[in-house]
Amino acid sequence: MMSFINRTVATAALLAVSASAAFAVTATKIDTTITQAEVEAAQVAWGEALVQISQDFEEGGIDKARATAEAVIAAAYGYDMGPVLFKPTLTEAPQTFRTTAEGALAYFVGDNEAFPDDTGFALKGWTAVEIENAAIFISGNTATTMGNVHITDAQGNVTTVDKTWGYQRDDEGNLRIILHHSSLPFSAD
Amino acid sequence: MMSFINRTVATAALLAVSASAAFAVTATKIDTTITQAEVEAAQVAWGEALVQISQDFEEGGIDKARATAEAVIAAAYGYDMGPVLFKPTLTEAPQTFRTTAEGALAYFVGDNEAFPDDTGFALKGWTAVEIENAAIFISGNTATTMGNVHITDAQGNVTTVDKTWGYQRDDEGNLRIILHHSSLPFSAD
Amino acid sequence: MMSFINRTVATAALLAVSASAAFAVTATKIDTTITQAEVEAAQVAWGEALVQISQDFEEGGIDKARATAEAVIAAAYGYDMGPVLFKPTLTEAPQTFRTTAEGALAYFVGDNEAFPDDTGFALKGWTAVEIENAAIFISGNTATTMGNVHITDAQGNVTTVDKTWGYQRDDEGNLRIILHHSSLPFSAD
Amino acid sequence: MMSFINRTVATAALLAVSASAAFAVTATKIDTTITQAEVEAAQVAWGEALVQISQDFEEGGIDKARATAEAVIAAAYGYDMGPVLFKPTLTEAPQTFRTTAEGALAYFVGDNEAFPDDTGFALKGWTAVEIENAAIFISGNTATTMGNVHITDAQGNVTTVDKTWGYQRDDEGNLRIILHHSSLPFSAD
Repeated sequence: MMSFINRTVATAALLAVSASAAFAVTATKIDTTITQAEVEAAQVAWGEALVQISQDFEEGGIDKARATAEAVIAAAYGYDMGPVLFKPTLTEAPQTFRTTAEGALAYFVGDNEAFPDDTGFALKGWTAVEIENAAIFISGNTATTMGNVHITDAQGNVTTVDKTWGYQRDDEGNLRIILHHSSLPFSAD
Repeated sequence: MMSFINRTVATAALLAVSASAAFAVTATKIDTTITQAEVEAAQVAWGEALVQISQDFEEGGIDKARATAEAVIAAAYGYDMGPVLFKPTLTEAPQTFRTTAEGALAYFVGDNEAFPDDTGFALKGWTAVEIENAAIFISGNTATTMGNVHITDAQGNVTTVDKTWGYQRDDEGNLRIILHHSSLPFSAD
Repeated sequence: MMSFINRTVATAALLAVSASAAFAVTATKIDTTITQAEVEAAQVAWGEALVQISQDFEEGGIDKARATAEAVIAAAYGYDMGPVLFKPTLTEAPQTFRTTAEGALAYFVGDNEAFPDDTGFALKGWTAVEIENAAIFISGNTATTMGNVHITDAQGNVTTVDKTWGYQRDDEGNLRIILHHSSLPFSAD
Repeated sequence: MMSFINRTVATAALLAVSASAAFAVTATKIDTTITQAEVEAAQVAWGEALVQISQDFEEGGIDKARATAEAVIAAAYGYDMGPVLFKPTLTEAPQTFRTTAEGALAYFVGDNEAFPDDTGFALKGWTAVEIENAAIFISGNTATTMGNVHITDAQGNVTTVDKTWGYQRDDEGNLRIILHHSSLPFSAD
């Protein structure tokens, strides 16, 4: 039999229970919880994309704008995961919710007979976007933000919307928009 | 129609895209990833329980030791979740793996005809436990440790085992042992 | 030395690699991913609560309605976790976002000098709620829904809103609303 | 003001609260919880790799065996994530735990002066591996198995070990071994 007792010490001076040696080890930690910085970067990227589409429309017309918008939707939204919960600011029933990439593209750049009311929200000459979060909620690989977004056109007019974004970290580690609810502020007047 | 443009500023001095206001908001973060401190506390608690069972056996006999061991198993192991991956140091086939609470109790305090080789590992007069981690791996609500555990008997003899513990955070937030692999060190001699 | 080779078989008829025995074991699986049924139950519960507050107001006045609303907010929303991302249908700047339980209560039952524009949305005699989801996105312990909610008053008039709800499973396993964005449908007319 | 009441129905025949329409929507579900099939496939792959290294050693000597072993360790273990909790069957203090890829490679193919006791476990002419799980525990992106592994050499002799494997899903979706505790069965004789 292998000896069960394989070390002897002259004293029982050890603490009854100790784990001090444990503290010399630094645990490897797998924690993919989204950071606030990742969320804010994704918000800024959305604003930059909106301004870019407007610029591309001015410089290269609808073809260039559409190509940019397609790239933005492919890179920033989660349509590859499933239907995206997208309620743009200015859509109406029965086309209120744009759960497909085609519906999102139509909203941003119009020019799609299947969405006759869409005039291309991103083509309106936007020059600046300011994001003002009211609250952010992060839970593991998901994050949600709510607040105002102020967008400025070429004449300096600012439009404010109430906006919610929901993000999911994808297989490659990037945040994707799986929720986007935008609405005009309510006014009782 | 509700006015789409509801705020006008005299200047377009805003940055093209800004989210500076966002930084005033501190995100709520739901992150239940286990901490290293929680892991080490669970290890120490196991050591304290072992010493306690030995003391209770000395003071109150098998009945008191069994009651303590039952409470320890109920509080520290995950048998309520399913079979626990428990390979104690001194068990033999066909009763090597103690995937049930009854099998774990038999190992710790013996006195069970269904486990005739069990003599009660926790009754051996253990007075001290020292934990020496080689590495700790934490992933979300799970954690795993590997290293040596040194246990001291009443005569001051120290036994060292190679030990792996796996923990799962339960519904109440507590870490539970769902894996426990203990083995005598190999010797080629 | 303990024998390294402890079993001999007369034939090497074993497959080169086999794990058939593995299939006799059913893995314990810890998977707290929210189900669609849980999401829909939470939606129905919100509708029932709205109708209940209206009924309680009719039967017991503001005191009874407030008590019910407080209980609903405490049970269904996640204010204990942090600021809730709540944009009610009819709020205006600078009180658009109701990130505190007090702000939510004021919206539902009014009667709070700190929120002078609130007239008590839940006191309007609502008799029925119909939920029409456009899409649902579930990710681990979180879920998000988007669609229309139709609410009927005592005269049978139906109001439709665009609504997003976000849920987080709490420590006790219950879904809590941590996001609620409600807006009137946009109309270009 | 936008009309708050935008739809009228002739009857209040709607249920007080209904969500029947919700059931027409199938939720997108993000659930990366490991499946039992993935776990068993990873176990089989380990067995195949062991046999492969033995074959490569026979056919191509130490260089070929080492190259294969390096590839196996790189593909199947999680050393890129941090220290791996690896306690091979036949290692001794102070080199019991092989938390580095170099230490793992030395165990499998020897030929490393820094690990003088290693003779190359994977070079022993293994021809078959049988996996017999006692229990499997899956929790989200982690999984743990415990049981016996029976390995057969060229003469048909079978060695049985008590083995625990822990897996972590990596960024690319693959399971990686972050825990491997192997020990000879205890014998009181």
